[in-house]
Amino acid sequence: MATPQVVDLRDYIRNVPDFPKPGILFRDITPLLKNPGAFRQAIEMLVAELRPRQVELVAAAEARGFLFAAPIALALEAGLIPIRKSGKLPCQTLSHTYQLEYGTDTLEMHADAIQPGQRVVVVDDVLATGGTVEACCRLVEKAGGIVVGCAFLIELRPLGGRERIARYHPVCLISYD
Amino acid sequence: MATPQVVDLRDYIRNVPDFPKPGILFRDITPLLKNPGAFRQAIEMLVAELRPRQVELVAAAEARGFLFAAPIALALEAGLIPIRKSGKLPCQTLSHTYQLEYGTDTLEMHADAIQPGQRVVVVDDVLATGGTVEACCRLVEKAGGIVVGCAFLIELRPLGGRERIARYHPVCLISYD
Repeated sequence: MATPQVVDLRDYIRNVPDFPKPGILFRDITPLLKNPGAFRQAIEMLVAELRPRQVELVAAAEARGFLFAAPIALALEAGLIPIRKSGKLPCQTLSHTYQLEYGTDTLEMHADAIQPGQRVVVVDDVLATGGTVEACCRLVEKAGGIVVGCAFLIELRPLGGRERIARYHPVCLISYD
Repeated sequence: MATPQVVDLRDYIRNVPDFPKPGILFRDITPLLKNPGAFRQAIEMLVAELRPRQVELVAAAEARGFLFAAPIALALEAGLIPIRKSGKLPCQTLSHTYQLEYGTDTLEMHADAIQPGQRVVVVDDVLATGGTVEACCRLVEKAGGIVVGCAFLIELRPLGGRERIARYHPVCLISYD
């Protein structure tokens, strides 16, 4: 059961037209981060959704995913697994390359980050096309982990991320059509 | 007063020789992040040091700084201000360019992130030369904020960061000579 929603989290999302390019309406989360009550409420609502899934580890891709993953991991008493761009992690890594609108991107996770069979959730601020979160989930699975959920502050429905990652049971607090 | 140290946080830092290049001993924090008790203790110790400074905002540069800034901001009931590489923030920004070993780097903060006179701490995982944290502090000051402290999990003493940012009253939990 979700924590009661005391404030409307949408009031703390700023709409920025034409960023990063013309025609795109960017959903800026910095007003929410700046408001301690709203940020706390968002974290508590995500934690309430994830707690029944018996989470052992929380994984997230840099950079904004870290802002949500760290407090969620602490609240769930779960370990935190940073997923990073190529070349940032110092030890042996697993990597996954995925398609962007133009070109590709590669994410890496430490090869020893997850024990086989551990229960993992993947967290990010925004679910758009689902490409990044799917790459994170694939990394978790390459390491032998079980993805028991994904959680996001925001989803951008028209981009189809929810359908793409349906098998990972996504939770989103704010949905934009 | 600091929270009693139940575990030795050093036991959760992995030393990786020759990363990112030969001759460098990298201090890898991922084992600490993966251990919920150790990560919680680190956050609680930093919060205990910062609480008396009457912090209104916690600022941090991407990416690893976010891992510490988010839980610290929530614990202090302070706002969280993300500082990012060029071009990532959607609204009007302040920017600061600083010297790296080879070349320069630029960090940006939203121009409306801080009200003049607000009390701000800057958080990061590692204090090395102090270049990044100094750039963050300069951004806070450009916006009219008052830097009332800086906090780090680790400091690398020989790199002189503590001296460089002494005026910002740094706190570090683990010091390596």
